[in-house]
Amino acid sequence: MSPTLESFVTVAPESHFPIQNIPFGVFSTAQNETPRVGTAIGDLILDLHVIAQAGLLDGIEGLNNPASVFGQSTLNDFMALGRPTWRATRAAIQKILSKDNAQLRDNQELLSKALVKQADARMHLPAKIGDYTDFYCSREHATNVGIMFRGKDNALQPNWLHIPVGYHGRASSIVVSGTDLHRPAGQRITPQNKTEPFFAPSAKLDYELEVGWFVGTGNPLGKRIEVADASEHIFGMVLVNDWSARDIQAWEYVPLGPFLGKNFGTTISPWIVTLDALEEFRVSGPSQASPEPLAYLKENKDTAYNIDLEVQIKPSNSSTYERVTLSNLKYMYWSVTQQLAHHTVNGCNMQPGDMCATGTISGPDNESFGSLLELSWNGTKKISFKDGNERTFLEDGDEVNMTGYAKSSAGYIIGFGDCRGKVLPCLYQ
Amino acid sequence: MSPTLESFVTVAPESHFPIQNIPFGVFSTAQNETPRVGTAIGDLILDLHVIAQAGLLDGIEGLNNPASVFGQSTLNDFMALGRPTWRATRAAIQKILSKDNAQLRDNQELLSKALVKQADARMHLPAKIGDYTDFYCSREHATNVGIMFRGKDNALQPNWLHIPVGYHGRASSIVVSGTDLHRPAGQRITPQNKTEPFFAPSAKLDYELEVGWFVGTGNPLGKRIEVADASEHIFGMVLVNDWSARDIQAWEYVPLGPFLGKNFGTTISPWIVTLDALEEFRVSGPSQASPEPLAYLKENKDTAYNIDLEVQIKPSNSSTYERVTLSNLKYMYWSVTQQLAHHTVNGCNMQPGDMCATGTISGPDNESFGSLLELSWNGTKKISFKDGNERTFLEDGDEVNMTGYAKSSAGYIIGFGDCRGKVLPCLYQ
Repeated sequence: MSPTLESFVTVAPESHFPIQNIPFGVFSTAQNETPRVGTAIGDLILDLHVIAQAGLLDGIEGLNNPASVFGQSTLNDFMALGRPTWRATRAAIQKILSKDNAQLRDNQELLSKALVKQADARMHLPAKIGDYTDFYCSREHATNVGIMFRGKDNALQPNWLHIPVGYHGRASSIVVSGTDLHRPAGQRITPQNKTEPFFAPSAKLDYELEVGWFVGTGNPLGKRIEVADASEHIFGMVLVNDWSARDIQAWEYVPLGPFLGKNFGTTISPWIVTLDALEEFRVSGPSQASPEPLAYLKENKDTAYNIDLEVQIKPSNSSTYERVTLSNLKYMYWSVTQQLAHHTVNGCNMQPGDMCATGTISGPDNESFGSLLELSWNGTKKISFKDGNERTFLEDGDEVNMTGYAKSSAGYIIGFGDCRGKVLPCLYQ
Repeated sequence: MSPTLESFVTVAPESHFPIQNIPFGVFSTAQNETPRVGTAIGDLILDLHVIAQAGLLDGIEGLNNPASVFGQSTLNDFMALGRPTWRATRAAIQKILSKDNAQLRDNQELLSKALVKQADARMHLPAKIGDYTDFYCSREHATNVGIMFRGKDNALQPNWLHIPVGYHGRASSIVVSGTDLHRPAGQRITPQNKTEPFFAPSAKLDYELEVGWFVGTGNPLGKRIEVADASEHIFGMVLVNDWSARDIQAWEYVPLGPFLGKNFGTTISPWIVTLDALEEFRVSGPSQASPEPLAYLKENKDTAYNIDLEVQIKPSNSSTYERVTLSNLKYMYWSVTQQLAHHTVNGCNMQPGDMCATGTISGPDNESFGSLLELSWNGTKKISFKDGNERTFLEDGDEVNMTGYAKSSAGYIIGFGDCRGKVLPCLYQ
């Protein structure tokens, strides 16, 4: 596909959604409250159900019933069709949207039904997420957390450089960008009394800047997905805010891992950006020469992605977002394909719509730390905002937004849109 | 309901499924391969879809479309209706099956369609399990594991007597009794070299004897389920074999908990026994006087269950099962209602069909240990079988079965049936 391709839909240069992106999402409108599949183009949404019904998506290899697939309230059916079909569908949509193609461009009646303003749409979760796994794949993040809780000499656990460490998360509490969340309460301890817990709202509410990836085609129980094949199984990526209550987590997590400190809510961005759209941003990741990974994790091509990742906070009494984190997905030690290969190496079965997240993506310098835990060094340093606000952890009314984007040498941006959420007060004291 | 109630269906005295049980499950037959809902009665299954279509389940409060609800391939729709409806439905089925009721008993044509031999049926997973959580609620099990890995003085972690410790499991790999599983492979270390892993099939494959409970009605994100209300939300119980690869688990689990050591497969028994059927077996559990639980976990009634739990193993070259564990659910420290209250105290939302498991149920004496890890004391003691076989962990071809049953003073047994699985060789070396 040509990097100079343009759409008849006006796309601002700073838009996350040029014709080179074509992400997939699920939306509804006041006029039609039935959720269905669309793609983002500029400030608009192209209703894929409408154009499928009009026959514009006929003849795509593997996509036998486009009107049914894109009339669903989730992308799971489309995800199950496999990467060649995802790729062919994306190419067909690009053709339909290109400025040289009159088929949709000059069909005013269809256009009026098929294009919807993003501002007028409500976005939904893009998939029915069967299982959700969260990894812990940023060396800088794991090191920072390790230094804080175990000291510099034992920062990384002995397994960390051998295993893409991960754990199962809660799928039911994954919400789409724009869903506000109540501060959780739970058991906490104090530094003065580390064995007698009390019950209270979390006082260390945090975000975690992560990237999520959706399984498209899965594997049967007992069979693994080889690392070389893994990218054929991954549908695409979203942004993830893995909200975390550090004080609840600290008391509960030994020995079986995070639970109530995490499962009160996880926010994702609504548009799934395909691996095909991100292909041109593949770069080499951190060296894995020492130690070398075991054979089932070894890769011989570039599998990191050069994607800038930002966190912005709007303090409760402020009117503007201010950036607190600028990180990049390329810092991640274990690639998403290594994560998938590891996840299935014991035969664990993946299914269309399963979601995995990378873990907090921190980078080498302070501004790239992907959580307030790291930015405030566990509450010991204040983060100052230009308007005079200060934070160590999140306060009620604070809003957090995450964005991600990759800049093409051709000038356009492939972006993820927003991943927003506001902290509402705890419902219980 | 009278404990002397009898069915016109012959039920052997040792059957797990007298008319006092009425568990719910999903089955299919060679004649009708569409999975639908049934109940077990003696050696038979009563097809609830068939009797609903015949109008026998009309008029039950809250069950507006019984033929639709019981024609589903999962129990999720029925679970969502709430405990009063589950209770009324069970009572209606008991009436239909009672020997004094001619309605079904004397309708030969309907009987021939509605009753199916269990031996001729294939059982399916009873629900679409959205999320699966595994707890760690047996003090004896946690203590045994703690002594083995941390020594006697630090056996229980500081949080254990305050928190029903739990973690998220993998829902996709939950399989129904009778599904054989391949031995997983993964990263392991040796006692001689604890920092350089190698890749191999697990050499410490184990079972864990657990009880699972299904969420019926859930809660919206942000709202909690109070401990006093929790039993209204629990649909019923099954047996769970939480297969575990101890060597994979040992290397991977710090700091985020068990992952590939567990998610290659979890077996459950097919019949969900309702809390109403188990009501008469409620007993007081272990004392929670020291320390007392925090207010949100305090209960003022008996919430333990006197249910015997067995594990039997048939070694690969043997023709008979031999019991290796005899435990009881009453030993469990944290009740299932406390588990649910804890799980939602931070606002985590539960949904119909979510499954939780108790963690390994071990008791005070050696025979009651619910895993080979404990019975063999991490491989240091051999378990001897009458036919001369010996085991520390499971070998290829070994079959494991779990059963559970409660004996009523009225003479009948409320049981769970079987929870079986065979260890197949690893597909990879």
